[in-house]
Amino acid sequence: METILVTGATGFVGRQAIVALQRRGFEVHGTTSSTTTSVSVAGVTMHHVDLFDSVAVNRLVASIRPVRLLHFAWYAEPGLFWSSARNLDWVAASLSLFRAFATHGGARIVVAGTCAEYEWGPTACVESVTPERPQTLYGISKLALQSVSKSFAEQVGVSFACGRIFFLYGPHENPARFVASVASALLRGEVARCTIGTQVRDFMHVTDCADAFAELVASDVSGVVNIASGVGERLSTIATHVAEYAGRPDLLRLGAVPMSPNEAPAILADVTRLEAEVGWSSSRPLTEGLRETVAWWQQGFKPPLSPSRHSA
Amino acid sequence: METILVTGATGFVGRQAIVALQRRGFEVHGTTSSTTTSVSVAGVTMHHVDLFDSVAVNRLVASIRPVRLLHFAWYAEPGLFWSSARNLDWVAASLSLFRAFATHGGARIVVAGTCAEYEWGPTACVESVTPERPQTLYGISKLALQSVSKSFAEQVGVSFACGRIFFLYGPHENPARFVASVASALLRGEVARCTIGTQVRDFMHVTDCADAFAELVASDVSGVVNIASGVGERLSTIATHVAEYAGRPDLLRLGAVPMSPNEAPAILADVTRLEAEVGWSSSRPLTEGLRETVAWWQQGFKPPLSPSRHSA
Repeated sequence: METILVTGATGFVGRQAIVALQRRGFEVHGTTSSTTTSVSVAGVTMHHVDLFDSVAVNRLVASIRPVRLLHFAWYAEPGLFWSSARNLDWVAASLSLFRAFATHGGARIVVAGTCAEYEWGPTACVESVTPERPQTLYGISKLALQSVSKSFAEQVGVSFACGRIFFLYGPHENPARFVASVASALLRGEVARCTIGTQVRDFMHVTDCADAFAELVASDVSGVVNIASGVGERLSTIATHVAEYAGRPDLLRLGAVPMSPNEAPAILADVTRLEAEVGWSSSRPLTEGLRETVAWWQQGFKPPLSPSRHSA
Repeated sequence: METILVTGATGFVGRQAIVALQRRGFEVHGTTSSTTTSVSVAGVTMHHVDLFDSVAVNRLVASIRPVRLLHFAWYAEPGLFWSSARNLDWVAASLSLFRAFATHGGARIVVAGTCAEYEWGPTACVESVTPERPQTLYGISKLALQSVSKSFAEQVGVSFACGRIFFLYGPHENPARFVASVASALLRGEVARCTIGTQVRDFMHVTDCADAFAELVASDVSGVVNIASGVGERLSTIATHVAEYAGRPDLLRLGAVPMSPNEAPAILADVTRLEAEVGWSSSRPLTEGLRETVAWWQQGFKPPLSPSRHSA
């Protein structure tokens, strides 16, 4: 069994990825720095480690000697992560982790990137074609990490890929994010105040995202790969589905919040590489994913009062 | 007196920059990690610190509370720095330093960049015009640092500029680099084996470079600024001048070494920003700078047998 190390393993995507990887036969080790969230999956070894402590990271990597590395951990506090100085800490910590991984015999690194690395336009973002012109410290930091890591990996003979995530929803989502906030408000019997919702986005179920990452890290595809559904939908349509499944369309207030002037009309992904080269595609329709997600929220999950999540 | 912190202060450029800054009335603090090189300038406070030790860096910055920061320190071992994994360590250490600087009230950061961040073509590199397509881990790392730092500085309200260095020569140059290697070989009475030397480069005297950085960091010009002479010269011409001043044109062997197939025919700088916005220009002709440099080598400086220099 090949050993894989997953960082951010108690995070939104990471907690699903460890399951997807175990299903594929990997010996899975996960890291977490969370003191509030614990994830227990039979057969997965979890390590509590501070990724900013390079000595501790080096010791952990030396003891596990993973062949593959799937790096999700990052600062992801909704609203704040776009411009937080903590993005710099994560660039530094990630580079240090990759150095340690390569030093101890690691063969392949896959890092979670973001659609915020692209210049957003009316057409779907295509890897190596759409210009990379991030406008936020978050996007700039992720792109900087990707470019340095790619060149480093070539130098040391390590395989490298970056999976660019677009928009996600699903179980364990931070309640301050879009689908989770609409679903949880409606299920509490509160109004959900939204923009008019004409923005088109590529939304993917987090379990699909995790499964696509598992397929990507198990493959030898290198470079940037969009991890997305390939289908765009208006936010208003998504909110309307959520309201319907929650049984409270009466509480949905589209247009109650003004749209930000710099809100991109469309953020879409081309998924040709993911489908043709990685060989992964989703069969789950958006409506089914949303229905399941609302049901998950309904099954009594109480959103934390002060959401804090440090991994994507 | 405004306080400025200069990293790599015993390095090739740094050791001249601290003098240029003191002349401009700054209270100059320098850092070095060198255990072999010591530079003593009256009135300049030198600190021996490991910039990879973020706790020590934070402590130092908190105690000095510099208003300006001029960051030269980097891995610069000739031949090796282009593709060394240590570039990653310097990206991480630099980001950590900038965080500490901003936290403790710093107002302006200037970092040493490189012409290797540009795509090299037949025309002079112009800031914000010439594409940034670095081909080496060194150039990629410097560009990544620049883009993250620029965005970070905007977020935290710190002024930021990057001075892109082209080609340098002058006293205390590492003897493995171009002008120093030709000069020291000839002065030892050995042959200097060179390529045919048709490559055109922008060469600048290190004291001019340091003075231009001092002017840049003292100004409020932001973004990328080329630090160069604006004049291109063939390597063969430069080597011929050096041989003439060394009195040993008989020992110069142009064409004795094959040129690398990926050697750029020209690497030139547009210095409009430096001259018009920073207000700095050089009056020192290349021939005069080379003559002085050969004289400096001649005055009995013995090149170290095992050159090691960790700052630009």
